[in-house]
Amino acid sequence: MAGGRPHAEAVALEAAGDVAGATVYVTLEPCAHSSHRGPACADLLVEARPARVVVGVEDPDPRTAGSGLARLSQAGIRADILPSTEARESLAGYLARKRLGRPHVTLKLAMSLDGCIALADGTSQWVTGAVARAHVHSRRAKADAILVGGGTWRADAPRLDVRLPGLEDRSPERWLLTSEPCPDGFRAIAFPDAVMEMAEVQYLYVEGGAQTAASFLAADLVDRLEIYRAPVLIGAGLRAVGDIGLDELDGAHGRWELAEQAQLGSDTFTAYRRLR
Amino acid sequence: MAGGRPHAEAVALEAAGDVAGATVYVTLEPCAHSSHRGPACADLLVEARPARVVVGVEDPDPRTAGSGLARLSQAGIRADILPSTEARESLAGYLARKRLGRPHVTLKLAMSLDGCIALADGTSQWVTGAVARAHVHSRRAKADAILVGGGTWRADAPRLDVRLPGLEDRSPERWLLTSEPCPDGFRAIAFPDAVMEMAEVQYLYVEGGAQTAASFLAADLVDRLEIYRAPVLIGAGLRAVGDIGLDELDGAHGRWELAEQAQLGSDTFTAYRRLR
Ligand SMILES: NC(=O)c1ccc[n+]([C@@H]2O[C@H](COP(=O)([O-])OP(=O)(O)OC[C@H]3O[C@@H](n4cnc5c(N)ncnc54)[C@H](OP(=O)(O)O)[C@@H]3O)[C@@H](O)[C@H]2O)c1
Ligand SMILES: NC(=O)c1ccc[n+]([C@@H]2O[C@H](COP(=O)([O-])OP(=O)(O)OC[C@H]3O[C@@H](n4cnc5c(N)ncnc54)[C@H](OP(=O)(O)O)[C@@H]3O)[C@@H](O)[C@H]2O)c1
Repeated sequence: MAGGRPHAEAVALEAAGDVAGATVYVTLEPCAHSSHRGPACADLLVEARPARVVVGVEDPDPRTAGSGLARLSQAGIRADILPSTEARESLAGYLARKRLGRPHVTLKLAMSLDGCIALADGTSQWVTGAVARAHVHSRRAKADAILVGGGTWRADAPRLDVRLPGLEDRSPERWLLTSEPCPDGFRAIAFPDAVMEMAEVQYLYVEGGAQTAASFLAADLVDRLEIYRAPVLIGAGLRAVGDIGLDELDGAHGRWELAEQAQLGSDTFTAYRRLR
Repeated sequence: MAGGRPHAEAVALEAAGDVAGATVYVTLEPCAHSSHRGPACADLLVEARPARVVVGVEDPDPRTAGSGLARLSQAGIRADILPSTEARESLAGYLARKRLGRPHVTLKLAMSLDGCIALADGTSQWVTGAVARAHVHSRRAKADAILVGGGTWRADAPRLDVRLPGLEDRSPERWLLTSEPCPDGFRAIAFPDAVMEMAEVQYLYVEGGAQTAASFLAADLVDRLEIYRAPVLIGAGLRAVGDIGLDELDGAHGRWELAEQAQLGSDTFTAYRRLR
């Protein structure tokens, strides 16, 4: 979350030396605005005179938004966008902030084959295995903030930290979704849309429970679903997702696209991205 | 379901010609019992004098059960079992009949990511897509009998036939789980354990609904789970699996092992085998 300058272009040009006549690949459109911390990347590139610049994503920042590309073209450098899912994903937090004015939200669900997160009496230790749980910690380490509902806080008082050797200091800020007073060491939002107020957060990781999952989904605030599925059947347990206000099946289709799949011990991991 | 003779060994030896000194691989232990329809396969092999016979599964038929292997060894042919999941799976129907006295039971579930088979009002057309539905028909074609619960019969009156070009005549016998009078064209069992009475059936394919799935699971009658999962979330819909009588999480683990995984259009197919 530190201020972004020097931008990648400045660093890469410095490392590469002479790029005259070369093709330069960048994930994000080179910026068109200078700051006291450095010149505009588009100007740096114009000076370096590559033959071509290939861009993965247009910068939604209004100070650039196409003018980085335009400045290159005007200087006689061929500049085009090659739309790339990988580029977009690698910038998901930045793009969500610029386009949606809020963090990129990942909802994690750990469940049985039949969609339960716990027995009917609330017992949820353990549905998934040790490898999946370590994977969750590695995902926490990539988030700026982590959030659970007040119900999960009262039931489990989870530590929500990163317990992986060497990554302990990567524990994200801890947030609750609650209208109750907020316990020490946490910050709170009182309704899902208040994620708009999490100003410095690019990546928010939501870990449940069922009501919280449902309220984020009902508000269409989830950009990525990460599902850990254990090879067990629970039957009449607690559901992973509560009422999301769906009233016809058509409305459920076309929203989620498979993004990633992995085997974690005997559990499977499947990630879906929200198509917008 | 036609009588098994000639057995594979007789056919393969006929096709192969001279196998003296060779290694012969068979899925099932060569039988030790002759019948009016042909000699014992163990005797055929002794005559053919291979150097070695490698067997995937010991025959649980009490007329063989190790004596096929013994007869080969006694004749100086090296004969051993190389336990093979593939061999066991290819004989699953036969093995279930011999070992468990009932058909091999596959439970099919088509559901959302969060374990629902329909909206709360029962709307279930369609959760999964056309490719998955065609796959279901190809699985029906491999079954000897297909079963649904009385509830599904009353709600959907499903045809339960194979609607794939060229396979229409592979439609299995149709059964209901019901204590009501049985409609024309169906046979019925009144409780899950009555699958013991399906004498001629090696492969039974159970297609739901939720109560039927749960009652087969609670009776531990399911040998293979086949899950079709659509990339949709339903929330407060009907669950795929009802109460299976589970009262602690430990009891749910160690039962199911991933057997197969495939992408079918935008849906995923995952099969699990029951570890016994
Ligand atoms: N397997 C897993 O991955 C996993 C993960 C997490 C939790 N769990 C289990 O899930 C259970 C808890 O789940 P749960 O569904 O009961 O509770 P929950 O979602 O953790 O919390 C519910 C609470 O969140 C707040 N909330 C939810 N929606 C809201 C909205 N739209 N506006 C304002 N506040 C909202 C309310 O907090 P206040 O009442 O505080 O105002 C509500 O009581 C526990 O048994 C836990 O062990 C499992
Ligand atoms: N997505 C899918 O893959 C899928 C597949 C099938 C069905 N469905 C949906 O599922 C819904 C129907 O499910 P459901 O759970 O209500 O009904 P169901 O399981 O199809 O049928 C319930 C009936 O099965 C009989 N039964 C169940 N357990 C029994 C037991 N232990 N002993 C004796 N009989 C038993 C009883 O029949 P009697 O009352 O006749 O005695 C009971 O009423 C429908 O909405 C259907 O569209 C979805």
